[in-house]
Amino acid sequence: MEVVKVLHMNKGDGETSYAKNSTVQSKIISTAKPAIEEAILGILCEKVPESIGIADLGCSSGPNSLLVISEIMDIIHARCRNLDRPSPEFRVSLNDLPGNDFNSIFETLPAFFKKQKQEKGIGFGRCYVSAVAGSFYDRLFPDKSLHFVHSSSSLHWLSQVPPVLESNAIPAALNKGKIYISKSSPQCVLDAYSVQFQNNFSMFLRSRAAEMVAGGRMVLSFMGRSSIDPTTEESCYHWELLAQALMSMVTEGLIEEEKLDSFNAPYYGPCPEELKMEIQKEGSFIIDRLDHFEIDWDGGVEELTSTMSLPLARGQRVAKTIRAVVESMFELHFGRGIMDLLFTRYAQIVDGYLSKNSANYINLVISIIKKH
Amino acid sequence: MEVVKVLHMNKGDGETSYAKNSTVQSKIISTAKPAIEEAILGILCEKVPESIGIADLGCSSGPNSLLVISEIMDIIHARCRNLDRPSPEFRVSLNDLPGNDFNSIFETLPAFFKKQKQEKGIGFGRCYVSAVAGSFYDRLFPDKSLHFVHSSSSLHWLSQVPPVLESNAIPAALNKGKIYISKSSPQCVLDAYSVQFQNNFSMFLRSRAAEMVAGGRMVLSFMGRSSIDPTTEESCYHWELLAQALMSMVTEGLIEEEKLDSFNAPYYGPCPEELKMEIQKEGSFIIDRLDHFEIDWDGGVEELTSTMSLPLARGQRVAKTIRAVVESMFELHFGRGIMDLLFTRYAQIVDGYLSKNSANYINLVISIIKKH
Repeated sequence: MEVVKVLHMNKGDGETSYAKNSTVQSKIISTAKPAIEEAILGILCEKVPESIGIADLGCSSGPNSLLVISEIMDIIHARCRNLDRPSPEFRVSLNDLPGNDFNSIFETLPAFFKKQKQEKGIGFGRCYVSAVAGSFYDRLFPDKSLHFVHSSSSLHWLSQVPPVLESNAIPAALNKGKIYISKSSPQCVLDAYSVQFQNNFSMFLRSRAAEMVAGGRMVLSFMGRSSIDPTTEESCYHWELLAQALMSMVTEGLIEEEKLDSFNAPYYGPCPEELKMEIQKEGSFIIDRLDHFEIDWDGGVEELTSTMSLPLARGQRVAKTIRAVVESMFELHFGRGIMDLLFTRYAQIVDGYLSKNSANYINLVISIIKKH
Repeated sequence: MEVVKVLHMNKGDGETSYAKNSTVQSKIISTAKPAIEEAILGILCEKVPESIGIADLGCSSGPNSLLVISEIMDIIHARCRNLDRPSPEFRVSLNDLPGNDFNSIFETLPAFFKKQKQEKGIGFGRCYVSAVAGSFYDRLFPDKSLHFVHSSSSLHWLSQVPPVLESNAIPAALNKGKIYISKSSPQCVLDAYSVQFQNNFSMFLRSRAAEMVAGGRMVLSFMGRSSIDPTTEESCYHWELLAQALMSMVTEGLIEEEKLDSFNAPYYGPCPEELKMEIQKEGSFIIDRLDHFEIDWDGGVEELTSTMSLPLARGQRVAKTIRAVVESMFELHFGRGIMDLLFTRYAQIVDGYLSKNSANYINLVISIIKKH
């Protein structure tokens, strides 16, 4: 499965859309905000460039896409006002895979520009926003064109399922009923995922190293783990419960057993040590900070879906968040017909789990500097 | 009516989509090809830049969007091979209004890149394609970032209907049953359209002047007229026949009379003299060539829609071409319900007209050079 063809957040603004179900990702963006601010002030303290290149990789669509950009521009604008100099020209690039809903971002751009002009007034620099469709595990931008790169909730997606799992080199029996690594995964599966992540992350660093100016900075936040054990619950238990929902449907004959056995999620939540190792190996970047945060599975939000309705059960909120992200991929493999049932069942299983356990994602935030 | 909100080609790839009904526009692109080739060789004969900025303004979606880009890259690649030097890095920007279907362009990008690499092999430079959504009657790109600008079948669209027509300053009675200028339009209406075009074209030139490098070139092709009379049939008769279709529906009570009277198309086909005047006034560009071509209303193509079906009547082909372009705008004003009937009737009227007359659009092609 080539991820480039199938992974995109649910489009539009309906009930199951990513636009309506991205509170967790928005929380993650807030968590990384201090790191973003520090990185940008670091760039500006060397010398405020006349024109500043900013890229958001894996921008998705919906309210989060322009939120980050808006925050970045606020920070730069405030700093320039403090320094009593005009803001630079902003060259902003929004990147995601070709299947992303760029149209809906573009439709919100005129209002975004209007708001920027109203808020920032005359001292506000020109701002050019463009969209770039392609995999960030390859080159996306011209040489030395970027000062600041941001990516949130994206780098845990691999460019593909580890090839060894697709080639039947590992007998399906060894990985039965799994859609991601777990306590019972054989070592060869764990290794294959880790190697795939290393290859992808290394390619990511190499591509950005060519695209960024010396002293440029990058803040990346994505799902990971604090433990070095890749089967730790904090990293994979939301997949485990989704596998349980699928398994129950296999038992009832709603999904063929081979269908489940041949599905593997192109996902890997690394530990800080793995990141450090790849950054050192690649050699173009210095690590400025590397933190991890716990994020509640449902974003920790106690909101009513509408003033008249009851709050959604937590399981349902978690299921909707996951559905908005993974449905395109699941639909392609398992068929459209069972999606509603799958995620209803997943919501029930998650609800049951959360009634007895607390559950968090671990979100890693890393800030790195391009060497001079 | 702000055109930025309503004008977009019909999306997707269905029966009435622009992607399936853009043969005339493709013909126009071919007509301009010699001018494009000459302009690009002009740029390369000064000094082959290491990185070349190319923009296509009003790129729309469908097969034409990447066709022009592909032709431009072919010319540059062939020239560099002749000079025995590697191709430059390509920075390609595709621009259209925010309502354009950029998603469908992005979905064809991976195949486009693959084909480029296969055809051009190892000497082929890196190519970065981005999309920029916004009006080309304003700034779109950073200062001095473009070497070559292309725009086809776009500059005849005004940024808005001349304000005087919207403000009731001209009594509707004077412009009754018209949706565009014609022999019976009062002078004040003709002047309002001409002034709106001048303002728009001047703003277009001023914006591009800031964005282009010295010696950079621009090839623009769009609907116009050879005569200085703005009511000449070659410039407005396709609108006249569309107004007839609307009028017949008013007569039958299918459209309210006031609805028709309050509709004005934001369209103006200028004459060469008007272009020359604005270019001289703005002052940043030298005219290299200025030609006009006749293009058959139906693109002059005798093709079967499928191997088994009869060729479409010419009226129907013309109506489909016009529908793919103007439907979004008409639908907003007259409502979705009458679109099928309107364009069926238009096809009949055009068919009747073409049985007794020949009919061509006049397409202007202008090539200009940014002064040093």
